[in-house]
Amino acid sequence: MVAPSRVPARSAAEARVVTSLLSRHGVLGGLDAVHSWLADAARGRWMETTRIPLDELAGWHRDEDTGYLWHETGRFFSVESVNVELGGGAVSRWCQPIINQPEIGILGILVREFDGVLHFLMQAKQEPGNPGGAVQLSPTVQATRSNYTGVHRGRPIPYLEHFRDPVSRAIVDIRQSEQGAWFYRKRNRNMVVEAGAEVEAAEGFCWLTLGQIAAVLEIPDLVNMDTRTVLACLPGGGAAFARAVPQHPVDGFAGALARSGDPTSPAVHTTDEVLSWITAARTRTELRVASRPLRQLPGWREADGAISHHSGRFFSVVGVQVRAEGREVGDWSQPMIEPAGPGIIAFVLKRIRGVLHVLVHARSEPGYADVVELAPTVQCAPGNYEVLPEEARPRYLDTVLSPAARVRFDTVLSEEGGRFLEARNRYLVVEADVEVADDDPEYRWLTLAQFDDLLRHSFYVNIQARTLVLCLRGLAARQ
Amino acid sequence: MVAPSRVPARSAAEARVVTSLLSRHGVLGGLDAVHSWLADAARGRWMETTRIPLDELAGWHRDEDTGYLWHETGRFFSVESVNVELGGGAVSRWCQPIINQPEIGILGILVREFDGVLHFLMQAKQEPGNPGGAVQLSPTVQATRSNYTGVHRGRPIPYLEHFRDPVSRAIVDIRQSEQGAWFYRKRNRNMVVEAGAEVEAAEGFCWLTLGQIAAVLEIPDLVNMDTRTVLACLPGGGAAFARAVPQHPVDGFAGALARSGDPTSPAVHTTDEVLSWITAARTRTELRVASRPLRQLPGWREADGAISHHSGRFFSVVGVQVRAEGREVGDWSQPMIEPAGPGIIAFVLKRIRGVLHVLVHARSEPGYADVVELAPTVQCAPGNYEVLPEEARPRYLDTVLSPAARVRFDTVLSEEGGRFLEARNRYLVVEADVEVADDDPEYRWLTLAQFDDLLRHSFYVNIQARTLVLCLRGLAARQ
Repeated sequence: MVAPSRVPARSAAEARVVTSLLSRHGVLGGLDAVHSWLADAARGRWMETTRIPLDELAGWHRDEDTGYLWHETGRFFSVESVNVELGGGAVSRWCQPIINQPEIGILGILVREFDGVLHFLMQAKQEPGNPGGAVQLSPTVQATRSNYTGVHRGRPIPYLEHFRDPVSRAIVDIRQSEQGAWFYRKRNRNMVVEAGAEVEAAEGFCWLTLGQIAAVLEIPDLVNMDTRTVLACLPGGGAAFARAVPQHPVDGFAGALARSGDPTSPAVHTTDEVLSWITAARTRTELRVASRPLRQLPGWREADGAISHHSGRFFSVVGVQVRAEGREVGDWSQPMIEPAGPGIIAFVLKRIRGVLHVLVHARSEPGYADVVELAPTVQCAPGNYEVLPEEARPRYLDTVLSPAARVRFDTVLSEEGGRFLEARNRYLVVEADVEVADDDPEYRWLTLAQFDDLLRHSFYVNIQARTLVLCLRGLAARQ
Repeated sequence: MVAPSRVPARSAAEARVVTSLLSRHGVLGGLDAVHSWLADAARGRWMETTRIPLDELAGWHRDEDTGYLWHETGRFFSVESVNVELGGGAVSRWCQPIINQPEIGILGILVREFDGVLHFLMQAKQEPGNPGGAVQLSPTVQATRSNYTGVHRGRPIPYLEHFRDPVSRAIVDIRQSEQGAWFYRKRNRNMVVEAGAEVEAAEGFCWLTLGQIAAVLEIPDLVNMDTRTVLACLPGGGAAFARAVPQHPVDGFAGALARSGDPTSPAVHTTDEVLSWITAARTRTELRVASRPLRQLPGWREADGAISHHSGRFFSVVGVQVRAEGREVGDWSQPMIEPAGPGIIAFVLKRIRGVLHVLVHARSEPGYADVVELAPTVQCAPGNYEVLPEEARPRYLDTVLSPAARVRFDTVLSEEGGRFLEARNRYLVVEADVEVADDDPEYRWLTLAQFDDLLRHSFYVNIQARTLVLCLRGLAARQ
């Protein structure tokens, strides 16, 4: 079989994604119907998460030598700890607990056309760490290898067969990293796969357009992290995006956004220059991460059945007991990471020659597979800086919180509820007049089209920036 | 400053690379002048490499516990050993010594235009492991971080300043892996950087066109490995390549080669399908590499001052004493890897709908940073298979050695002479009528344009395949 050449194939996918992004009405109905379906799905679900001491977690034990927390099967994940040395950072050496989950899981969304418009099969799903134990809009499938090889002896996972190899008709199929501050080299396989017309939505599932998902992305804590990362990896739209989004008035925000998605628009830096800058950062940054015992970890203390930082900042490792109905296993306990406070994650935007550019930061985190990834302009938990040196304060934090910033997106979203307990971040997209030197070692201006290029590959764009890319594209659908 | 959009910028670089590829006459003269310059450069150079026992290496010591070989400075590299578990392989578990060189070195070539044609500043350089201690055509700069931070207390490295950050005017700037069978996660920064007209060739250096380098690539052991990997990362040519290479007769090899470089030509698989296949291979392959002591390493023995496999196959770790004139340090000793025999590294080509396709193999090696890279159709040392199970024999080895194969390139080239002692491989490019299923998990047909896309990023195309990509592009310049 000879496929059409790659350029037209990609263009076709882009056009279909853009059509779905601009559709607020789908097979289910309008946005009202989406809200009704979510309310219905939440009804009758039940999940209770109770804090318990780490040493009372059923099925988990602590290694005598290292103090690491393991599941008795040896699968799922473990809580370990590392010594981190980061050359050039404001804090150049520290110790911390970290989650080790070496298995590559699947985050998969099925798509199907209804009336010529792509619809995404979303699941209403609870996770123990979701704020309020609430139902969130989740991918069709979220499965660790332990899940799908049956280690947990639970119910079979619906739709999993569409994401097993050999995969055909994938629109997205790429491994991406997750939080490098809390996970050691965790990678998940982000997938969007086309289903045939015979595939129906089971109970708890629903076909939504991308525009409908973009609309509910503005509701706090509703669209889960796994959905956000998978959808951010979709083809961004390219020329189709630029054509479909209204460019009038020429000096308006929507026009600048549309042109940002067009690969032929002028960019401050060529993509080759951006890649060279990433190469330089990955070469220059000396990151050393070495295991060290979790017992008596410098800077951390164990008390009340949890492991916390002496300062009370950053995060704690806590134990929870979970009781649930409506998911694979009804009752279990597990360790989780509980952040000390909410974070701020922001893109600073600027129109340069009429094209919207995003200011990205070359950031290093201990769990990254390849030293440095592109992060939002600001990504921090402001409370932490009370115990850190002044020079550690993020460069553009004041900019994004300033009244002078023109706010384009501002919603609190929560992170992976399977591993993190009530981890919430305020996601902000603002326009601001900041000046950055062309050869600044840490920051660069990128267009949306350049994000699109980078998101076809692993480990360039970090998980927080992926959420913001999705929010930014979603602004094109705002009415 | 606003750059032209990335697409035209890349096209301009492609056109300049193609013009240089098709130029066999440069500022030095024709090919005769190149040969004379190489002969002159070799004269008066002198390098003597003598085998000595590992425990007599000056400046190196063996760790008492692990048996690892370290340089007394803690820099350069160390010889360590690992236990490898590779799920799904014909051999699923083994131990081996491996070189650990965590520093990211620079492999850099300066370019400058003469009469509108790009010329590459090449160096005539000896390395202790080069066959016969011969001079090879080497990059402008080959420097480990230990080199350029002065740990070895040698002479300053000419032209190094052009490759230090911040780099501007880079045509290539990407980290790539090296031999994953012998190096643990070694990565070098491959760079091609434009120099101004004020930069002259010092003694031992020479400005050559890409066409001249392609011509001498057919001479055994002359173009060194570092030159090959850097030049393979150049923009392949795209539409400019397709336009410049004669496409008549339409059914001829040159025409099929030209169309292979054109991203609008029909390909068996779209690039997104190729990326999905790589994702699947990297997700499926379970590779576990763990340190273990080099003393009493299972399967290996220490005798006569060297460490060798019991079978006498694979490779040995040996010590050498080097005396040299004309390089940074005149006299040193070091450990090296000496392969048991020469290898065969081959691309199988096929014209599919008039477009030349290359059959690539998804290969895992213990030292790869990301589990799997794309390797040549065949990459092996045939002698090793005498001691391995029958199913380990490479699938297309018989194809490439068959008299029915139409040979397009066939030259013995040697590998990194700074770490490997007389490591030589027969590089073959053949056309053959092989059939491969579209969903074969291990093999895919790629066009040259698709290689071009992948080579902009790290760790997709392995070092052996990079040499063959360069050979294949060079065939377009053959007259």
